[in-house]
This record gives sequence, structure tokens and C-alpha cells, in this order.
Amino acid sequence: MTRYGAMYGPDITFLGVPPCDLDVPGEWADADVVILGAPFDGGTSHRPGTRFGPSAMRQACYLPHDGSRPALALRTDGLKDLRVYDAGDVECFSGDIERSVRVIEAAVATIAGTGAIPVVLGGDHTIALPDVTGVARAKGFGRVSVVHFDAHADTGNSEFGSLLGHGQPMRRLIESGAARGDRFLQIGLRGYWPGPETLDWMAGQGMRAYEMSEIVSRGLDTCLTEAFEIAVDDCDGVFLSVDVDVVDPGMAPGTGTPEPGGLTSRQLLDAVRRVCLELPVVGVDVVEVSPPYDHAEVTAFLANRVVLEALSAIAFRRGGGTWDPTRPLLDGRRPE
Amino acid sequence: MTRYGAMYGPDITFLGVPPCDLDVPGEWADADVVILGAPFDGGTSHRPGTRFGPSAMRQACYLPHDGSRPALALRTDGLKDLRVYDAGDVECFSGDIERSVRVIEAAVATIAGTGAIPVVLGGDHTIALPDVTGVARAKGFGRVSVVHFDAHADTGNSEFGSLLGHGQPMRRLIESGAARGDRFLQIGLRGYWPGPETLDWMAGQGMRAYEMSEIVSRGLDTCLTEAFEIAVDDCDGVFLSVDVDVVDPGMAPGTGTPEPGGLTSRQLLDAVRRVCLELPVVGVDVVEVSPPYDHAEVTAFLANRVVLEALSAIAFRRGGGTWDPTRPLLDGRRPE
Amino acid sequence: MTRYGAMYGPDITFLGVPPCDLDVPGEWADADVVILGAPFDGGTSHRPGTRFGPSAMRQACYLPHDGSRPALALRTDGLKDLRVYDAGDVECFSGDIERSVRVIEAAVATIAGTGAIPVVLGGDHTIALPDVTGVARAKGFGRVSVVHFDAHADTGNSEFGSLLGHGQPMRRLIESGAARGDRFLQIGLRGYWPGPETLDWMAGQGMRAYEMSEIVSRGLDTCLTEAFEIAVDDCDGVFLSVDVDVVDPGMAPGTGTPEPGGLTSRQLLDAVRRVCLELPVVGVDVVEVSPPYDHAEVTAFLANRVVLEALSAIAFRRGGGTWDPTRPLLDGRRPE
Amino acid sequence: MTRYGAMYGPDITFLGVPPCDLDVPGEWADADVVILGAPFDGGTSHRPGTRFGPSAMRQACYLPHDGSRPALALRTDGLKDLRVYDAGDVECFSGDIERSVRVIEAAVATIAGTGAIPVVLGGDHTIALPDVTGVARAKGFGRVSVVHFDAHADTGNSEFGSLLGHGQPMRRLIESGAARGDRFLQIGLRGYWPGPETLDWMAGQGMRAYEMSEIVSRGLDTCLTEAFEIAVDDCDGVFLSVDVDVVDPGMAPGTGTPEPGGLTSRQLLDAVRRVCLELPVVGVDVVEVSPPYDHAEVTAFLANRVVLEALSAIAFRRGGGTWDPTRPLLDGRRPE
Amino acid sequence: MTRYGAMYGPDITFLGVPPCDLDVPGEWADADVVILGAPFDGGTSHRPGTRFGPSAMRQACYLPHDGSRPALALRTDGLKDLRVYDAGDVECFSGDIERSVRVIEAAVATIAGTGAIPVVLGGDHTIALPDVTGVARAKGFGRVSVVHFDAHADTGNSEFGSLLGHGQPMRRLIESGAARGDRFLQIGLRGYWPGPETLDWMAGQGMRAYEMSEIVSRGLDTCLTEAFEIAVDDCDGVFLSVDVDVVDPGMAPGTGTPEPGGLTSRQLLDAVRRVCLELPVVGVDVVEVSPPYDHAEVTAFLANRVVLEALSAIAFRRGGGTWDPTRPLLDGRRPE
Amino acid sequence: MTRYGAMYGPDITFLGVPPCDLDVPGEWADADVVILGAPFDGGTSHRPGTRFGPSAMRQACYLPHDGSRPALALRTDGLKDLRVYDAGDVECFSGDIERSVRVIEAAVATIAGTGAIPVVLGGDHTIALPDVTGVARAKGFGRVSVVHFDAHADTGNSEFGSLLGHGQPMRRLIESGAARGDRFLQIGLRGYWPGPETLDWMAGQGMRAYEMSEIVSRGLDTCLTEAFEIAVDDCDGVFLSVDVDVVDPGMAPGTGTPEPGGLTSRQLLDAVRRVCLELPVVGVDVVEVSPPYDHAEVTAFLANRVVLEALSAIAFRRGGGTWDPTRPLLDGRRPE
Repeated sequence: MTRYGAMYGPDITFLGVPPCDLDVPGEWADADVVILGAPFDGGTSHRPGTRFGPSAMRQACYLPHDGSRPALALRTDGLKDLRVYDAGDVECFSGDIERSVRVIEAAVATIAGTGAIPVVLGGDHTIALPDVTGVARAKGFGRVSVVHFDAHADTGNSEFGSLLGHGQPMRRLIESGAARGDRFLQIGLRGYWPGPETLDWMAGQGMRAYEMSEIVSRGLDTCLTEAFEIAVDDCDGVFLSVDVDVVDPGMAPGTGTPEPGGLTSRQLLDAVRRVCLELPVVGVDVVEVSPPYDHAEVTAFLANRVVLEALSAIAFRRGGGTWDPTRPLLDGRRPE
Repeated sequence: MTRYGAMYGPDITFLGVPPCDLDVPGEWADADVVILGAPFDGGTSHRPGTRFGPSAMRQACYLPHDGSRPALALRTDGLKDLRVYDAGDVECFSGDIERSVRVIEAAVATIAGTGAIPVVLGGDHTIALPDVTGVARAKGFGRVSVVHFDAHADTGNSEFGSLLGHGQPMRRLIESGAARGDRFLQIGLRGYWPGPETLDWMAGQGMRAYEMSEIVSRGLDTCLTEAFEIAVDDCDGVFLSVDVDVVDPGMAPGTGTPEPGGLTSRQLLDAVRRVCLELPVVGVDVVEVSPPYDHAEVTAFLANRVVLEALSAIAFRRGGGTWDPTRPLLDGRRPE
Repeated sequence: MTRYGAMYGPDITFLGVPPCDLDVPGEWADADVVILGAPFDGGTSHRPGTRFGPSAMRQACYLPHDGSRPALALRTDGLKDLRVYDAGDVECFSGDIERSVRVIEAAVATIAGTGAIPVVLGGDHTIALPDVTGVARAKGFGRVSVVHFDAHADTGNSEFGSLLGHGQPMRRLIESGAARGDRFLQIGLRGYWPGPETLDWMAGQGMRAYEMSEIVSRGLDTCLTEAFEIAVDDCDGVFLSVDVDVVDPGMAPGTGTPEPGGLTSRQLLDAVRRVCLELPVVGVDVVEVSPPYDHAEVTAFLANRVVLEALSAIAFRRGGGTWDPTRPLLDGRRPE
Repeated sequence: MTRYGAMYGPDITFLGVPPCDLDVPGEWADADVVILGAPFDGGTSHRPGTRFGPSAMRQACYLPHDGSRPALALRTDGLKDLRVYDAGDVECFSGDIERSVRVIEAAVATIAGTGAIPVVLGGDHTIALPDVTGVARAKGFGRVSVVHFDAHADTGNSEFGSLLGHGQPMRRLIESGAARGDRFLQIGLRGYWPGPETLDWMAGQGMRAYEMSEIVSRGLDTCLTEAFEIAVDDCDGVFLSVDVDVVDPGMAPGTGTPEPGGLTSRQLLDAVRRVCLELPVVGVDVVEVSPPYDHAEVTAFLANRVVLEALSAIAFRRGGGTWDPTRPLLDGRRPE
Repeated sequence: MTRYGAMYGPDITFLGVPPCDLDVPGEWADADVVILGAPFDGGTSHRPGTRFGPSAMRQACYLPHDGSRPALALRTDGLKDLRVYDAGDVECFSGDIERSVRVIEAAVATIAGTGAIPVVLGGDHTIALPDVTGVARAKGFGRVSVVHFDAHADTGNSEFGSLLGHGQPMRRLIESGAARGDRFLQIGLRGYWPGPETLDWMAGQGMRAYEMSEIVSRGLDTCLTEAFEIAVDDCDGVFLSVDVDVVDPGMAPGTGTPEPGGLTSRQLLDAVRRVCLELPVVGVDVVEVSPPYDHAEVTAFLANRVVLEALSAIAFRRGGGTWDPTRPLLDGRRPE
Repeated sequence: MTRYGAMYGPDITFLGVPPCDLDVPGEWADADVVILGAPFDGGTSHRPGTRFGPSAMRQACYLPHDGSRPALALRTDGLKDLRVYDAGDVECFSGDIERSVRVIEAAVATIAGTGAIPVVLGGDHTIALPDVTGVARAKGFGRVSVVHFDAHADTGNSEFGSLLGHGQPMRRLIESGAARGDRFLQIGLRGYWPGPETLDWMAGQGMRAYEMSEIVSRGLDTCLTEAFEIAVDDCDGVFLSVDVDVVDPGMAPGTGTPEPGGLTSRQLLDAVRRVCLELPVVGVDVVEVSPPYDHAEVTAFLANRVVLEALSAIAFRRGGGTWDPTRPLLDGRRPE
């Protein structure tokens, strides 16, 4: 068997779900979801370390690593109700961004091509380019909208003389046609980047970006509802890209380019839940978790829960029905 | 004198309140509140370290350790308006959970038996079993409701082959009759534990658990008001159990089983204040503060303030009157 | 040239703005803003380390240090639209508080005397005394109101036998007449200090302090609006003093006297923006950032952004017009 | 298959050696060495955290986890030249020291009973009791001498009212006859514990303890040579017990009871090599690695290398021949 | 009783020795040693934090805080064989170096005046000036030689415009005549400070400084022996001043001005032992322990052991006899 | 002026030496030494972060950043007695190793081509390839021997499918002929890498590697003396490459691939001094300092001192004369 496993440290799977080898289709033919590590941090413009993100996200949990996580809120088990496999890491040499992007795209396309949902654990945000492109290869260029949580627009043109990098993936995606600019929804932007020229380019593409001022003044739920309408207009699926730095650095310190003034952890988890409950998600990535800058694993725990929240909600959506957040936890349970 | 003092490090008292020896009743005969350390972490299922919780909570303050803390908001001094003593630590050998539970229960019962309020500094949440049982020995089994802030229900049946542990105390309390299931109010639950079987058991006991989704959608204050009504229905007192992991790990990293998506520190302090202002509190514990995982003592400071907030509000309640949170800080003060 | 530069570490300027030497007026004759470091921590009552605050605030950014920061929200560039210089540090010997206060005051007065806005990077809050006094020397004693974000009132009379220190600057300012007590607006107070005697003194001066309970129950924006009305009543300018400990320690651990239950980072940034958009700010200080207690630079990043938020808003206010927080980020942009 | 795996975190093996299930003898019938985790920290008298020691020691390496480690110095591959399996962790509930000691002893005895060498990864030093006893069950009580690297004698009688704990294992071993006092060699003792009464007891047992003063003045190698002679006098095998706190806390901070003035890392590695080259080692434990107190994993890396050094030397000894430390690394190699 | 206690945190004594109030002579009339905290860090030129040094040194131990520490090596109990009291902290306002120096000197002189040995816990090295001067007031100016372990000579003339500070105490001592330059022995110097002018001044005073190159090439013991001869030539007593930065920063990170290439912890402990065994020590200080920069308390533990090593050796010297470092630990013990 | 400056953070120079722009030869025409940053970490096989190494090494000092460092031991000022410039960083995109290697080589060759000594601050050890090659372009291929301090041989053939990386530079250098295998001296190797095949290759090249066992048994100075003889045999110059991981991880934690059992800091500094005193050094690099894994900057301080030690000794060598390590620090000084 040729399974590569984890690039860094021991070969483990996300909370103990079964492993699979992408090169052995029979191992994962029935997959609903395939988890993939992309331990690449060669594209970051500042603090590196996200190469250890996949390993950290896979194991940041105090419960048994038994491939089961029954969600209290949604009453689904994202790891059991769905058939979830972990394909290990794509071998990403951080010193060769072109090759890394190429091999990630191939792996993601392989997964998406079977109808399974790829969930890619980064790595820096460079990987959104191969992640979304890989899905688009399966679903059709321009047929997948993107819901993008981030402090940064990631629509730069080049950095350090490179068209590839963690500040540029969204521009490359729109330029290539993999994703449509007018189906690109960005939530949580703030701070001092990018500059006017890039913002003009974004406007020209019809992108919709929710800066934190708008989110605070209009309410996150209002913004999400509006964004969701755009996302499903003439698109067949949604790619969810979560940069952990959308959360305030005080609550998610383990990241490379922290921008103060972000969402709370609670807000991000609730928003990810809504995305996956209400939209036809066909791909997910969770990026920019940098363990060397983390403390007591709080950022890794958060990212682990982002993945679980997404899977729990996808499982709920597949099961049908409507979720009522006000329903008490124990309501309707059949006492032993 | 047989006072044991602190198990770990120097023998200090909570912010300098007078020490007392439980074995010398005359030393604390007039106590309104007796603080007790339970430096036990043998019951934790993951990261240990809460044995240093009592020492950390006693000293995490930048003000003089002079046994006085006049609260800005409530205009009471919880350490002065009440007669507060610190009995030191119960000697807890973390390698012997049965003995530790036994001796904690005895110490708490001794305190509660005199009418004083025990405030127990944990330690892991295992200690809720002896803490509430000790109070129930004085007030009557089933006569004390429990208001329980936590990310976790702590109603597991057994772990590592043990009926005792930090995931099981609430089940043991209900099974023994020390506390009634239908007067058990849990606030802040979230995540992926326990599983359906345990939740069914909880439902069967009539427990009321407020998961974070309900809290976010209905509002924390609404949930608290509802819970308070249950708490005082046919019960004579309330035990307040605060697991610091109810707060988001980003704001309270120094704990053993962090679950992202929790309350803010501000929310917890306000909720504890309401409990102690509005309910007849007869016992308190603050648990799961693990200094080895803390940073810059932020979790220890928070737990110290949870204790002070509780004592300030208990003092206010004893003084009578109604508190108006909108009243300006300097309103009605008599200028010098 | 006599420019002193940075006291600790290399001689750098705030994000690369041009340096200037206060002793060479021609270098900064056209300044709108002059940044000044006050690396003094001899006045702190607990954890020191703020002497490294100026250096940390100047460089806590992942973007190029190129003297430009176009703000997404306000669409201004606080470092470019204003003429901003960095005068380096005032040489502050932490072992001599009297001398340090004297030389800071002189430097601030020099800046304010030209009409430029001094932005002072602390240092502990002792420096508010020379900061506000220096501005008052230029604008007139009693002509400048103070908007003060802090967990603490800083109106103590003396500490460790000294009238100077980080717990006493506000009293000294009011006593000297540099600032009027009835134009002193304090936002974010909480906890257990100061005691009744000092609060009575504050009331006697007509100070208005917003404790967190009032802020939570009435809303921060309501409180700010009310405070702003007082601030501009019969005063010619406003000094903005931001103690980073107004933010919850979980989100801003790198400080000396952390008091749980504070604002979120987002709230502070929004509030600072409102102050600088709506009020005639004539001086700013940002204090109590203690890098030794920080983690992953999150507190330093926050303080850096507080400065940028202030400058961005000052630039906006000078440009005229009204800012609409609900306006989408890309709205009205001219596509390339 | 009933393999338990790792208690905390993912189920991994020591640097990728094959797993085995002790309950399935056929899986490891040919073993030379069986690695066993004992994640127990309920016996520590101070800082806990060693429950995470096995997991940390298994993975603290930057090389591929491929079950091979060719040693530069000894030119053996301890993981390949020997048949090494990892049996996972013994399920140790830290709150029940009696049960934990019992199950560890059983597991160790099972391994030793086949002639394989158990290498136990602690855990606190409590486990030396079951580790050595387990081996003695196979080799005969009193037939195995003990070479014990430690800052502490671990010969206390009781602590916290318990005969079991990390300060007492060596006394229990001698009392039971599992090990002979006059074949007990302790290296690296220092500091202020135990007191005279215990030292007298030790003398009465004929123990030989090398305090750091003797080691510094006579030389470590001289002391080792002397100790080795005692160890092989009328004994059939040697148990090597390495408490990582024998190394100076500056070089091995991740431990529970640090005592300054210890060996260097280099000295410990060289000494362990000599033990395993020159003596008939029949069992090994490496204990007191506490990851919560470690920094940048330096203590975990050290402990990992202690295990590898031991295995490399055991492999060399089995291969026969004499090792010359002065031989150049590349001497005698056959160029490609 | 007017005892001030500890400035920062709870009022504790060094490992539980009895407290005393310097103002109540009867409390400590029989003292052999009085411990005094000098929590002053206003004189440091770089990283502060030593104000927490006294508190850290008093409690950095995993053994019971019971006022007893029987030394394995010397077979004395420095805390029991001597009558040791802890007078608490001198109130040191770090913002006022002149006052702080004055009050420390008075306290030290009070102690030394009775014949007791003051052991001062710093604080930064500024305090060597009042420490040695205080002793000289009792023993006579010029009658006490100084053995000074440090990476730095601390003979600067002024810094930040101040004659007082942690880089200047040794010059002030020699200038005032409190200590003779030609009886000033410095051990462990290295690095790049001070410059030639200061070195010339030192040479002119007849100082003897052992730079690390000399120590490495000649051997530490040789250098010490030579230095000891100078120290006792026409002097009546020796003051031992230990700056923890004499140890390599890798082993003692918690300090303010780390200079790589220092002694090992072991070397420092052995050297301190020799000083106190072989010389008539009349005063001791241990300085420059900065807890904010420490990790896992390793520097605090080391400094605690420096104090204990000194007291153990002083007790041995008083008891008479010769110590043989090669004597086995258990040799000559009377078995139970 | 086109000076690029520092890639990460503010544009600073090594301890304040004058900046220069390599593209403006007139700025540094008289240089003896040019410092160059190579903030590249895309070639590391494990923990990244060395991109922040140049910035950390330039500023890790508590003394004024004034471009002067008079060495106590050697009595030279490496920054003043030599003409030293800092050319800033080569723009290294960590995601493109080929380009990064190319541009570093060009910059180094530019410096060496003028006769100045390039001192390159890494970055991971990948950069040794362009560093030595750049010097060889000026001095002649095969005319420069290499003295290489490291835990690792760095002679791998490929890693992650790349011929470039931090484990392969020495092989590439020998293959290209830039450096001769039989003039390659490696000091400090240890651990479990590389495997026999690579060692055979090394032997075939005539390399001389001193593993720690040989160093311990023969003595470091003996090994160095022997190595120096080889280094100057039929070579015109020596390149000194210092990987900070040659030092034990306990003393130098801030690195990517820590291997326990290394040199002490003191040993490394003394060895670097000898290299630069006794050999004709024509180029230097100091690599593998990874600030995210450092604590209290101890590794950065060490690396800073390695640079200073080298420059101090180069200055001494140029001045002529013989250095006597036993000479007292103050010997021969002219008193003021």
C-alpha cells in the first residue's frame, strides 16, 4: 500500500477515522468525506508553522480518538453518520510552491471527482487555490461559489515576486475561472490590507466582502443570510474556506498574520454550522493554524471543532429536517 | 494547632483572609464563609495540573493581600462584609480518588454543618461530588438545587473503570439523592460529549441543560431567569459549581479539557453575580483551573474574580435591597 | 543630529514612518502627528515590562514597514493622509520617576505646542500625567477633556509612598487643573479598586466613570454617545488615553494588572474609532503593553491597531464627511 | 484484536516500530524488546503531567517515523537490529495508584517472562516498583540489580499517607526482595531529600549512592566503572531506571521535581550507553518527563534519545565486539 | 506588629523559616541569618522583572515549606542548624532608586549590626551597593572583601544619567571605601561590557577579575583558590554576591541581561559551597532572577538552591571539621 | 537608493553597524566584513521559523545598538576594528528554494569578490550551498576548506524530492567542486542521521567528521587542532559554518531539528574563537536559529555572540600577535 501518511510526526488520522490511500480507490469508494492534510507553509508572508497544522488539528481533542463525535447541538455524529476517511498528507515541500500547489490540486480533484467532499487541513492559505480548483475540476469551472471566512481578502497579485502565496489564492481562482468573482463571499475582513488598487480589482470582479464594521453594525446573521442568497444563485455547490485568523488573535493566537478585532470563537462555530446546514457544501478547507505560535493548543482545538461543526452540519443536512437552535438539549430525548 | 495549610507551596490564604483550622471550631465559629482548597487532579481524563489551582486562585491578584476587596459594581466588600476564613487545603492524594473524595466531603460537611458557606477551590471537577454531598449532609438530601456552569455535563457513568472522576460527579450526586435531577441546572454545555445514552439518562432525571446554541439564540439572561425559577422551586438552597472551562478556551486557556465556543469572561462574571444576588447560595466550588496550561495567569485571575464576584453578591444579598446595573459608578457617592 | 532613537533595541520608527528629532524643529515642522515612545515602567504597582511597549507597538505588524496603512473600513491612510513622524523615545530611567515624568512632559509640550498631535506609546500609565499636562500646556489648563479607557480609575492618592505612579496620574491631573474632573470620562472600569474613599473623591470632582456593569446593561455605544457630549462641552480638545487592560486579559494578556471581564478587542477598536471620528482629539497615549507577559504578540498587535485606528479616524475627520459603518467594503469602488 | 493503544491522543508507536497486543502472544513472540507506555502521574508529589510522557517520548523526533534509527556512534540500528514492538499503553487511572501499579506489573511480567526486554515509558517514578517487580517475577527476586539515574533516592517510606508514590518505589522494591539493597546503584543524587532517617535506612540496606559531589570530584566514568562491578556481582541481569531529572533542570525543564546541579544531557547519554554496552540489561524505564513543563520539546527529545541510546547499545552488545569511542565516524567505511 | 511582609503577592517566608520584624529586635535576637527581600528592579538597564525575584526564590521548591533542608552533600541543615529568620521585603519603590537604596542599606545594616548574616534576595544588582555598604557599616569600611559571581563587572560610572543602577554598584562601593578594590574578586565575567575606560579604572583599583577564558583555561577551582587567598588577606569578612546571570542563559534564562557562555548550574553551586566553607562570609545577596523570563521556574529553583547551598556550608563551617567531596553519600551512616 | 533592508519587521542592522546597499558598491568599498541576512526557511525538514533568524540575531543584545562591541577576552572591537556593514536581507521567498539559493549566491559572491568577508545570517542550512559557493566563485572552486559545526552532516542526497534543502547542502558543495570533500571538517555530529549509505558517500569524499563520542573522549581542543591542520593544507581560506544546533537543545532550544547531547554554549564560543584566531577565515554563516521555538531569546543571544566572537577574533588575527587565554582580564591595563 502506498499511503504516504503524515508528513510530520506519526501517521495518525483525524480523531481516529479510518485511513485510506487515495491511490487505492477501493479503500474509500463509499466515502462521503475525505480528509486531506496539506502541510505547506512556504507561501506565508510572515510567521510560518502551518506545516504542523494538519497534525495539530487531527489530534487536538481530549476525547478518545475513536472516529465518533456525537454533536450535542445538532444530534448528529459527523464522523459516523457520514463515511469519513483520512487520506493522510499530500507530500508538500514548502520550498517548492509550484509543485506543492500542483500535487494538492490533483489530490483534491481525485476526491471531488468521486462525489466525496474533500476537507483539506492546511497549511497556509496558498492551498485555497488548489483546493477550490480541484473541486472545480469535478464540478465545473464557475459552478462553485466560495464562502470565505478570513481577516484578509487574499486577493493580492504577487508577493515576494511570486504569483502563488497565501495572499494571492483568491485572485488566481477568479482569474482562472475556477470560481466566479460575483459568487465569492468574504466574511470578517478588517485591518489595512489590501490597498485600493486591489480593492478596485475586487469590486470589478463583483466580489462581496463583509468587513467587520458592516458585520458589527448589521449583525453577523443578517450578513450571512444575505451572502447565502448570493452563494446559491446559479451555482451548484459551495466551497467553504476558513482561515482561523478570522477569529480575534486573543482567542486564536496560533496563526501567522494576526489581525486584531475579529470574530469570537463562538461566532465562527455558529457561522460554519449555518453554512453547512443551509448550503450545498462540496469542499472545505481550514487553514493558517500555526502550532508554534499557539498556547495550550487553543487554536488547534478551535480548528478541530470547526471541522467537526462542518461535518456535523453536513450530516444533519443530508438527514433532512430543520434545526431549531432554541430547542433544549434534553428535549424529546427518550429517558433510559 | 493542626491546621494543614496549603498542600503545594507556602501556606497562604485567599487574598489574605484569616486562616482557620477546621479541627478547632472556635477559630471559625462566626464564619459566614469558609474557603477550602481541594488540590486534587487524579480524576481528570486529560490534562492534569488542577492540584495547583487552589494556590493559584488564592494569590492571583495584583492588589495587596489584605483580606479586603471592595467591589466597584456592587459596593460591597465580600471579604470584609462577610466573615471569611480560609481553612487551607484538604490533604488530597491524587493517586487515591476514593480517599480524597471522602476527606473532602467530611471537610465540606463540617463547614456546612455550622451554617457557613463552603467555597471550595479545585481541583478537578471530581470534587463536585463531595462538595455537594457535604452540603447536602447539612441541608438535607434533595433540598439543595445545583446551578452548574460548564462546557461538559459531567454525567458520565464511569471512566478508566472508575465511578469516580471529573466526568461523573453529577451522576453520582443524583444517584445518591444528594441532589435532585430535576433541580439540576446546567449552563454552557457544548461540543461532543456525552453521547446519546448519557443524554437519555439525563433527560430521565429531569435535568435542565442549556447548550450554547440555546444560550446564543435565546440570550443568556433569559436562560438564567428561567433556570433560577426551577432552582428555587421546593429547594432550600443552591449550590453553585463553576467549571472555568465554561469560558472559551481563548479567554481561559489554563484548563484540562478545553472546548471552544464558550462564554466570555464578562458573561461568566455577570452570571455568577446574578446567581448569588438572586438565589440562596449555600455552597460554591470553582474548579478545573490548571496553572501549567495557563498563560500570564489569565485563567487564575478569572477564577479569583469568580470567587470574589460570588462573595460580593452574597454580601449584597445579605444586606438587602435591589441592585441596579445601570446606576453610574459614582452616583450617590458623598464627595469628600 | 541628537535624535535619541529607541531606548531598548534598534532605532526603529512606528511602522516605518519618517523619524524626526524633537530638538531639530525643522525636521517635523509640518507634522500633523508626532509619535513618541515613553519606555518607562518604574511606576507600575505589579508586573513591569512596559518599557518594551514602545518597541513592541512600533513593530507588531506583518505588513511591510513602509509608513503606509490604508484602512479598509475608513478608506483613509492614517500614516500617509496625515504627516506622521516618530521622534523616538524619551530617555526614561525607570528608577527615577520624577525625572521621567518631567522629561516626558517637556517632549509632549514641545509637540503639542506646534499644533501637532502627540501620540505617546507607553510605558505604564504613570505617563498619562506628563502626557495630558504637556498637551494642557499648549491648549490651556482645563481646556482639554480626557476620554480614558481602562479597567482602573488611576485616581489613587499615593502608592509605595509616592504621589507619582501608574495608579495616581488622573488625580494629579485634576489636582493641578491640567484636566477638569467634570470633563473626565472613564470607560471600562471594573473590579475591586479603588476603595470608597477614592471613589468619593472622584465623585467630588464630578468625574463620570462607566463601570462594566453599566456598559453591559446600557450598551457601549449608548455610554459613549453620552460621554462624548460631556467631553465637548466647554472644552477645546480631547485627550484619548487607552490602557490596554480595558480589554479582557484573555484577549490582551500582555499587561501588568489584568482585571477579568473587560471589553473585547473589537469593542475597543470600534470605540477608539468613534472617539477619533466624533471628537476633536489633540493627544493620544496607549499604555500598559507589557511584552514579557504577552503571547504570540497578540497584545502588541492590538495596541498597534489601536494607534492605527486612531490615526485613520483622525485622518477621516480632517477629510470631512460622515462615515457609514454599514456601507459594504467594495461599494462605490471604481473597478480597474 | 484487543490492543488498547495510547491512552492519551492518537494510537502511535515509538518512532513507528510495529505495534503489538500483549494479549496476543503470537504478535510479538520473537520480540527482543517490547516498549510499553505507563501514562500514570497520580504518584507525583509536585508537578504532574507525566501521563503525557509516553506520547511525547514516542514522537519527539524530526526524522521519519519509520521504525529505524541507525546510530552514528555505535553503528547499530536499535530499532532494526533488535526486534522491537510497541504494546501501547497500560490503562493507568491516575486516581487509583494501587490498580495502576498492579496492571503495570502484570504487563511488564508478561513481557519479561518471554525473555524480551521491557522498556517502559513513564509516567512518574511510581512505576519503577511494578517495572522492576515485573522483571523480577521473570528473573527471580533478588537476581536483578538496579542502576538508577536520578536526582532523588526515591526511598521514602510514605507520602500523603500512601506507601505507593514516586518518592517510595525503591524502598518497596528492597522491602519486597524484588531487588537487593546491596545491588542498588544510584547515580546523580543531590539536594535536600531524603532526610537522615531515610539515608540511614538506605545505608542499612547496603545501597550505593553517588551524590553529585562525589561524581564531580571523582569523575562520572570512575563512579560508573565502580558501580558496574557491584551490579554484576552475583546478579543475573540489570534493570536500568532513568529519571530524566538526573539532568540539570536547565537542560531538562519538563519534569516535576527539578533539582538544580545535575548532569548534562551529554553525560546522561554517554552513561546510558555504557550501562547498556557493559551490563546485561534486562529491563529499562525512562520516567518523569512532564510535557506541560517542557519547552520546545527539549526534554521529550532527550528522553527519546535515552531510549534510542539504550537500544543501540543493547544491539551492539548482542553483536559482540568492543566499541572504541575515539574511532572517527567515517573510519573504516567502504566508500560507495 | 509592624512587619511589612512581602511586597508582591502573599506574605511568605523562605521555605517556611520563621518570620521576624526588623523593628522588633526581640523577635530575631538570636538570629544567625536573616533573610531579606529587596524586590527592586528600577535599576536594570534592560529586561525588568526581578521585583518578583524574592517571592520566586522563597517558594521555588517541591518539598514541604517546613523550614528544614538537610543537605545530602554536607550533612547539615542550613535552615535548622542555623537560626534563620525571614524579615520579609524592604518596601522598594522601583520608581525611586535613591530611596530604595537608602532603605535597603538601613535594613541590612540593622541585621549586620547584630552579628547576624544578612542574606538579601534581589532584585536587580543595584542592591549590591546597599547590601555591601550595610554590612560595611557594621564591620568597618574596607574590612569586608567581596566575592562576586557575575557575567558583568558592574563597575560602570553612570547609566541613563544615574550614578545608581544595576551596572554601577561595584564602582560606588569602591569609591565610598565600603569595599576595597584590591579585595574585590569577580568571577565569570565575559562578553562585551564594560569598555576599556572602565576596565582601566578597575585595574587602577587593583580589582581581580576572572574572565571565562581564564576560568576555562586554568580551571575554576584553581581560580577560586587563588581568589580566596586574596579575599582573606587583611580583611575580616567576605560578602558573597551572586548574580544568577553568571550561569549560562541556557540554564538560567530568567534574567535580564543574559550573556551566553557562562558557568553551568553545577559549577555555580560547587563554587558557592566552597566560598561558604572556606571563607568567613558575613553577608550574601542573590540577584537578577527575573521570573517573567523564566521557564518552568528553572532559574528560581537554581537561585533557591544557591541560597540553601550557602546556608548549608555556613552551617558546616560553624560546626568545624573538613569536608571531603569524595566521601560516599551513605558512608559512615548508622543503619537504622 | 535601492537597499532592500530587512524582509521581516523593521529595517535594522546588526547591532547598529552602518547599512549598505550591495548594488551601490561605493557604500561599502572599504568593507572588511559585510553582514547579510538570508531569511529563508523553505528548506527545513521539520520546524520552520528561521526566516526570523536574521532579525533576531541582529538585535539580541541588551547593550546599546551602537556598532561597537569591545570584547573582554580578546581586547578587540570586532565591529569597530573591522569595517563592518550590514547589507540587509536578500529577498528570499521561502516557497521558491531555487530562486532563493540563486539570489543568495549572487549576493555572497558580490561581497566575496571584493575581498570582504561575508557573514551570512540564516535562515536554514540550505543557505550553506549558496554561501560557500558564492565565496568559492571569488576564491576559486576547491580553494576554500569548510569548518562546519553541526549536529548533522547535511550530506543527504535529496529530501521531499528536492536536491536542495537544509539536509543536503554539503553534498551539493562537494559535488559541484565548490568545496573539496577532503577539506571538509565537521564537528559535533551525533544522533541517528544520516544512514550508512550517506556515510559511505562521505567517507568516499575524504570528509573528516568528529562525532560527539570522539570529541568527548579525545577532547574538543585536540580535535580542533587536528582539524585545523587539515583545513589549511593546500587551501587558501576557510569558510566557517555554524549551525546553532551543534549546541545542546537545552541551551539552544530555538532551532528546528534539535538533537540532544551537544556542545555547551561555552564550548561553541571558544571553538569559534579558535577558528577565527588560527585560520584564514573568508566567509561565515550562522544558521538554524528559529525564534518561534526560542525562550527568553537565549538562542538568539547565543547566535549573536557567535557572530561577535568570530568578528572579535578576526580582528585580533588581523592585528597580529598571540592570544593568551590565561592572561587576567585586567592584566597590563593602564589605570586611569
